[in-house]
Amino acid sequence: MKIKQHSILDLNNKSLESHQERFDFLSNSLVKKEVNIDNIISKVKDFQVAIPSWALGAGGTRFGRFSYYGEPSNLEQKIQDVGILHALTQTAGAISLHIPWDIPEDYKAIKELANSLDIKFDAVNSNTFQDQKNAKESYKYGSLSNTNEAVRQQAIQHNIDVINIGNQLGSKSLTVWLADGSCFPGQNNFQTALQNTENSLKEIYKGLPNDWSMLIEYKPYEPNFYSTVIQDWGTSFMLANACGEKAYSLVDLGHHLPNSNIEQIVSILMSKGKLGGFHFNDSKYGDDDLTVGSIKPYALFLIFNELVYGMQNNPQNPDLAWMIDASHNIKDPLEDLIQSLEAIQEAYAKALLIDQDLLKAAQLDNDVVKCQEILQDAYRTDVRPLLEKARLENGGALNPINAYRSLDIRNQLITERGKNTVATGL
Amino acid sequence: MKIKQHSILDLNNKSLESHQERFDFLSNSLVKKEVNIDNIISKVKDFQVAIPSWALGAGGTRFGRFSYYGEPSNLEQKIQDVGILHALTQTAGAISLHIPWDIPEDYKAIKELANSLDIKFDAVNSNTFQDQKNAKESYKYGSLSNTNEAVRQQAIQHNIDVINIGNQLGSKSLTVWLADGSCFPGQNNFQTALQNTENSLKEIYKGLPNDWSMLIEYKPYEPNFYSTVIQDWGTSFMLANACGEKAYSLVDLGHHLPNSNIEQIVSILMSKGKLGGFHFNDSKYGDDDLTVGSIKPYALFLIFNELVYGMQNNPQNPDLAWMIDASHNIKDPLEDLIQSLEAIQEAYAKALLIDQDLLKAAQLDNDVVKCQEILQDAYRTDVRPLLEKARLENGGALNPINAYRSLDIRNQLITERGKNTVATGL
Amino acid sequence: MKIKQHSILDLNNKSLESHQERFDFLSNSLVKKEVNIDNIISKVKDFQVAIPSWALGAGGTRFGRFSYYGEPSNLEQKIQDVGILHALTQTAGAISLHIPWDIPEDYKAIKELANSLDIKFDAVNSNTFQDQKNAKESYKYGSLSNTNEAVRQQAIQHNIDVINIGNQLGSKSLTVWLADGSCFPGQNNFQTALQNTENSLKEIYKGLPNDWSMLIEYKPYEPNFYSTVIQDWGTSFMLANACGEKAYSLVDLGHHLPNSNIEQIVSILMSKGKLGGFHFNDSKYGDDDLTVGSIKPYALFLIFNELVYGMQNNPQNPDLAWMIDASHNIKDPLEDLIQSLEAIQEAYAKALLIDQDLLKAAQLDNDVVKCQEILQDAYRTDVRPLLEKARLENGGALNPINAYRSLDIRNQLITERGKNTVATGL
Amino acid sequence: MKIKQHSILDLNNKSLESHQERFDFLSNSLVKKEVNIDNIISKVKDFQVAIPSWALGAGGTRFGRFSYYGEPSNLEQKIQDVGILHALTQTAGAISLHIPWDIPEDYKAIKELANSLDIKFDAVNSNTFQDQKNAKESYKYGSLSNTNEAVRQQAIQHNIDVINIGNQLGSKSLTVWLADGSCFPGQNNFQTALQNTENSLKEIYKGLPNDWSMLIEYKPYEPNFYSTVIQDWGTSFMLANACGEKAYSLVDLGHHLPNSNIEQIVSILMSKGKLGGFHFNDSKYGDDDLTVGSIKPYALFLIFNELVYGMQNNPQNPDLAWMIDASHNIKDPLEDLIQSLEAIQEAYAKALLIDQDLLKAAQLDNDVVKCQEILQDAYRTDVRPLLEKARLENGGALNPINAYRSLDIRNQLITERGKNTVATGL
Repeated sequence: MKIKQHSILDLNNKSLESHQERFDFLSNSLVKKEVNIDNIISKVKDFQVAIPSWALGAGGTRFGRFSYYGEPSNLEQKIQDVGILHALTQTAGAISLHIPWDIPEDYKAIKELANSLDIKFDAVNSNTFQDQKNAKESYKYGSLSNTNEAVRQQAIQHNIDVINIGNQLGSKSLTVWLADGSCFPGQNNFQTALQNTENSLKEIYKGLPNDWSMLIEYKPYEPNFYSTVIQDWGTSFMLANACGEKAYSLVDLGHHLPNSNIEQIVSILMSKGKLGGFHFNDSKYGDDDLTVGSIKPYALFLIFNELVYGMQNNPQNPDLAWMIDASHNIKDPLEDLIQSLEAIQEAYAKALLIDQDLLKAAQLDNDVVKCQEILQDAYRTDVRPLLEKARLENGGALNPINAYRSLDIRNQLITERGKNTVATGL
Repeated sequence: MKIKQHSILDLNNKSLESHQERFDFLSNSLVKKEVNIDNIISKVKDFQVAIPSWALGAGGTRFGRFSYYGEPSNLEQKIQDVGILHALTQTAGAISLHIPWDIPEDYKAIKELANSLDIKFDAVNSNTFQDQKNAKESYKYGSLSNTNEAVRQQAIQHNIDVINIGNQLGSKSLTVWLADGSCFPGQNNFQTALQNTENSLKEIYKGLPNDWSMLIEYKPYEPNFYSTVIQDWGTSFMLANACGEKAYSLVDLGHHLPNSNIEQIVSILMSKGKLGGFHFNDSKYGDDDLTVGSIKPYALFLIFNELVYGMQNNPQNPDLAWMIDASHNIKDPLEDLIQSLEAIQEAYAKALLIDQDLLKAAQLDNDVVKCQEILQDAYRTDVRPLLEKARLENGGALNPINAYRSLDIRNQLITERGKNTVATGL
Repeated sequence: MKIKQHSILDLNNKSLESHQERFDFLSNSLVKKEVNIDNIISKVKDFQVAIPSWALGAGGTRFGRFSYYGEPSNLEQKIQDVGILHALTQTAGAISLHIPWDIPEDYKAIKELANSLDIKFDAVNSNTFQDQKNAKESYKYGSLSNTNEAVRQQAIQHNIDVINIGNQLGSKSLTVWLADGSCFPGQNNFQTALQNTENSLKEIYKGLPNDWSMLIEYKPYEPNFYSTVIQDWGTSFMLANACGEKAYSLVDLGHHLPNSNIEQIVSILMSKGKLGGFHFNDSKYGDDDLTVGSIKPYALFLIFNELVYGMQNNPQNPDLAWMIDASHNIKDPLEDLIQSLEAIQEAYAKALLIDQDLLKAAQLDNDVVKCQEILQDAYRTDVRPLLEKARLENGGALNPINAYRSLDIRNQLITERGKNTVATGL
Repeated sequence: MKIKQHSILDLNNKSLESHQERFDFLSNSLVKKEVNIDNIISKVKDFQVAIPSWALGAGGTRFGRFSYYGEPSNLEQKIQDVGILHALTQTAGAISLHIPWDIPEDYKAIKELANSLDIKFDAVNSNTFQDQKNAKESYKYGSLSNTNEAVRQQAIQHNIDVINIGNQLGSKSLTVWLADGSCFPGQNNFQTALQNTENSLKEIYKGLPNDWSMLIEYKPYEPNFYSTVIQDWGTSFMLANACGEKAYSLVDLGHHLPNSNIEQIVSILMSKGKLGGFHFNDSKYGDDDLTVGSIKPYALFLIFNELVYGMQNNPQNPDLAWMIDASHNIKDPLEDLIQSLEAIQEAYAKALLIDQDLLKAAQLDNDVVKCQEILQDAYRTDVRPLLEKARLENGGALNPINAYRSLDIRNQLITERGKNTVATGL
């Protein structure tokens, strides 16, 4: 299914007046503070976040899974779902595929479908943390780090296959998330595991087209519970440097030990030109993969403060691959993604409100109180009218969640797809 | 020194018009949502938070202390400082004394001074975590839990002395924070330590006037680094039940293990009628004692959501003793407290915005997305015009931090007190 | 399959002499310290730990599962597996069933099989965290805490059914682990959820036979990632008190926030007569369910120190239901359980070595250094000869892992069962 | 005071026979496993750990300090204390000075004293986390990272002064621990702070003699509670690489976020030739600075496993500077250090027992169970007879704690020094 543009417009028209009032008032008060509103709106409009194909069905935990009705059961339907998100929010203009779950059968048709919905193919993701049916080698004891060369070769070849698939679709980057590690002390030789991983990544890197980048994720634990080969940004950074200038670190918000200062990691990686991608989600305990902004929205704002700073001051750093990496066990996946997208836009807009010159001056004065005031003034501002304006100008819905419900989209999907579909890979 | 009322008014007048515009706009938009604004403003106006006497000087860490100029060096000056805070914010109408640091020499004079500044004496705090000069017994190995009866008796008597001091000032509660615990496995017998503590608390409880309450803090670690006798709310709750109906648990935001769900603890204690007090601060790692709302403002809002719910639905629970328990190593202590007070008011006002009926309905529907929307709608609202209005009606400053700086208060304090004063107890 | 007693004896005979030498030497040196060795051996011999039926197949994570060959595919085979463990270790004389995964078809036959292997039926476990096929109501939004009465009733009835099943097998306790909670702020009303849970537990409690006990687990997070209804020991303790004297708390080592002092919790619960059961495993990050003693063996020893103390000094506390609750993704499940059993026995024997009188005296002297020396002296002792002796006297294997491998048991299981069996419930 | 060699010998003689029995038995059983005992004893004998000068007096927390009688009040007495430790343990043959607390007045005399006690001068430590009396600039807002060049210059010069002091004593390395960071979001520009730090470290590096090394510590938090400039090994490693080949990372066990896998960090740094030093202590919550091995002895053993592996397999890595960095609030500091030294030796000896070839083979087989068995077999061995033998051969005490008490050393120190001395810097 596809949302008709006019149905969004019809909905918008009902609350256009009230939006305009709120926008005008906010706009006036910001202009008094010499904020360049057009610039902010323009940046928000340009900000596009990729939706991972696996987030469109209900996720699960090791204790089970409660499925959601009307889930997409193939790649076409996944792209349609992203099309719905994008039509409503105008900020989800990309999809990030997971191979082997999303191998296209007809590349041309898939590309045309995505194109018709204004959806690009962002980073492609390989999977060496599960064994596929009929796989020759098992990843039970690791993939790129495995002590067995045949296993490493299979994992390397899989990544190269993923690049080739992505290449046919117009993707420009490969994301490597490695579950490799160990569950018990002594199981792994740390040095060998890291060296094998480095060698394997270099092999994959050789297969990377010139205009591609390789994004290396890190994670401290899970699914391995004693050690992970790429356990932190330091290891990822080291590997990216070893591979070459097209290799970067990727930060996933949920992949850190308790209490980590993630915004500092983001900032330092950008200053070194090595932050290549970013996965959004939120968490209270571990890699909880909750809706973005649902637990620690101020932390998200602080991270965006560093991202904005880096985008303005670190030309050495590339454009980032933005993606949501959440999992929705008890919400309608599409509603959940809409909430995530809204939270991302909100944090971005608030970060753009920060007066960087004023902040810098306060920092040089060691006026700690004022530094905090500057950040909190931006954060406390209700920027929703700005986000509405950006969506409106792009043709999206003033209030995407309300529109999704008013248009009864889930029921239409159930009608089309049935209740008991299960998304591939879940 | 004391702030002159007219100087605040003069400052307010300069931005009164702009305030009124913002207030009117917010007010209109909230009225459309059927929010009872007068009710919220009235509640915010009534909300008073005690300032602990030790927060008025610069704090320190075990690695040292950087003192601040113009610190209060006696109880009179501490009360004056709270008077300044209260004049500006109209929400700091109480002081919480720490004994033996703040024993009044002249009770009548002290009471008159506080009265003239509209400052009440809130909970009094005992100190059995340090040895006082000439003390007969040492608390090195514990106080109320000590295996030595003479030490326990000294600690019990000290608490009774503190009650008596507080009683002369009009306080109505005693806060017991116990550092007791152990640094090494085996050092303590857990059962004996807890039993001794329970017995000691019961002795103190006997000395409690009828209209007083005893507030029992808990904390997982620091300054003991292996175990703490009252390590969590469960232990505090157990002890409060053992002591009697005038004994309650006290929650300090910084006294929890990483990732604790504090709002749930608050809610459950209120449902059992056993939440007696609350200490505000913020933290990223442990008991960091940072400015309220400076790290996790959304968590503070969620806690206030439970506090508001409990105040409305749990008549079994008493009025709470609210206090800031922060420590300011690198900020002007008064500015820091102003920021804390603002953050508390903000979280409270936002929590009051939550439509509890709508939330309950969404919860009954298991409409998780809507539950989140309801909370986030309240949280995303910029409530600063409401806070300004509340302060204005109470005679405070529209913008307390700006007023504090415009009135050049710190320099006046330095002129009066000198640069190198050190607050007692620091 | 069943291990023949003589095959164990044959293996033992090969290393009997060397065992005897080591035992004699250790025995002599302990006797010099006035340790009552016979008493320790006797206690170790009597100590029996239940094996949960779900631990006999390979576990998994949300990212997938790597199965193990020869897994038991029905209850009979699971009991046979426990029989193998018990024959080798003589410390696994019980099985803990999980319903609905392990409902017997023929009670008489099952009881005879277990009896023939000297296996008892320990606590039975209910499952309200997953939806069973054809279930009328879904646990997606909670079970005993659900806002919908029909769901609560289904969950209550299930627990009563579990009691009835257990009763026919000779079990004497029901373990209730509740996944109930919420993934997002606002989703749940904490007070309602707890009250519903309390009411539901009371209903189940009514169905409890007189000689049964109800064991209430707690856990801070997972599979819910914002709040869990029974989040900590304090909540579990409160519920157990509300239900009555046959209700107890159950401690699972992996169900705590980072850095929790678990031994203190154990100690306090025993002093209140409310520790009913204990689940062994180990972890580095969360509920990792790793082999017991594989990560923090000293913490396990400290916990056993409290358990031993409580068993000796707290007659108010019942006998505990001991169970291993680990999950084995990359090890042979039986070998993993043998390692867990060995680690438990080791910690228990070392704790029994502690001279409690000496420790008490040092505690009263506040001789912290000596307290530590006493604990470390016990811990540093190599007690393996004691464990061997206990097994030997019970008819088990001197070295169970070696015996398991020498007897080629896994291959026999594969021959009998085939490679691709999957244990029910996994 | 100085311990007389013959008094140690006299004590040893009383338990020599019993030692010899235990040693022979252990030795025989290890020889059967083809362990090269002489090699292990020789390595243990050679292993020397520096005592930091500040650990010889009682430490404290921000809540206060309980002093210990007979503390050393000057550098001479501190060296005498290390002399006592070394005489008893034969493993404390070095002292690590903290400047400005320990600036020698008479270099020649100090060197002769140290020499007479067989004490070397290990790494010297600078202090830019506190303001010294009469200091021109303040470190309140940072030292090497400060935005103010004059402050940075003062801090750089201080480090160069420290090098010069160390150089006159025979030290060969400078340890830089930087408290620099921020307490509130926005206070610091992360990129500027790191760049300033890098520039400052390079200036210090220029002043480093050719045969010296610079050791760069990292720490996630405390005394700054929002961010720390050198927050983790990745940052330290990056800075060490930027400075040059004489710059290394230093790992302090207490300087990590909860649940960090420290042994992996150690291993990777050694594989890159960049682990320069190691600070021993133990902790349950944060940088608790508890006695080594008192909380997580198995983690210490796993770390030593990596250290041993690195020392054998990573010629690219230099010899390490070993130091204890603990703080003793409630124990006799010397007894505490003896316990730490024993725990270090024990972990080292157990790690040396691991059969690295067998382990490697099991790793290549992915025999996870066997890997664990190999590590646990070494860990479960009671190696105390080996440590006794090593001390005996070096002229130390069979049982240092007992000897310390038998010789009544603390009372002798009190007699010499009085009760109320306070160590400089505390």
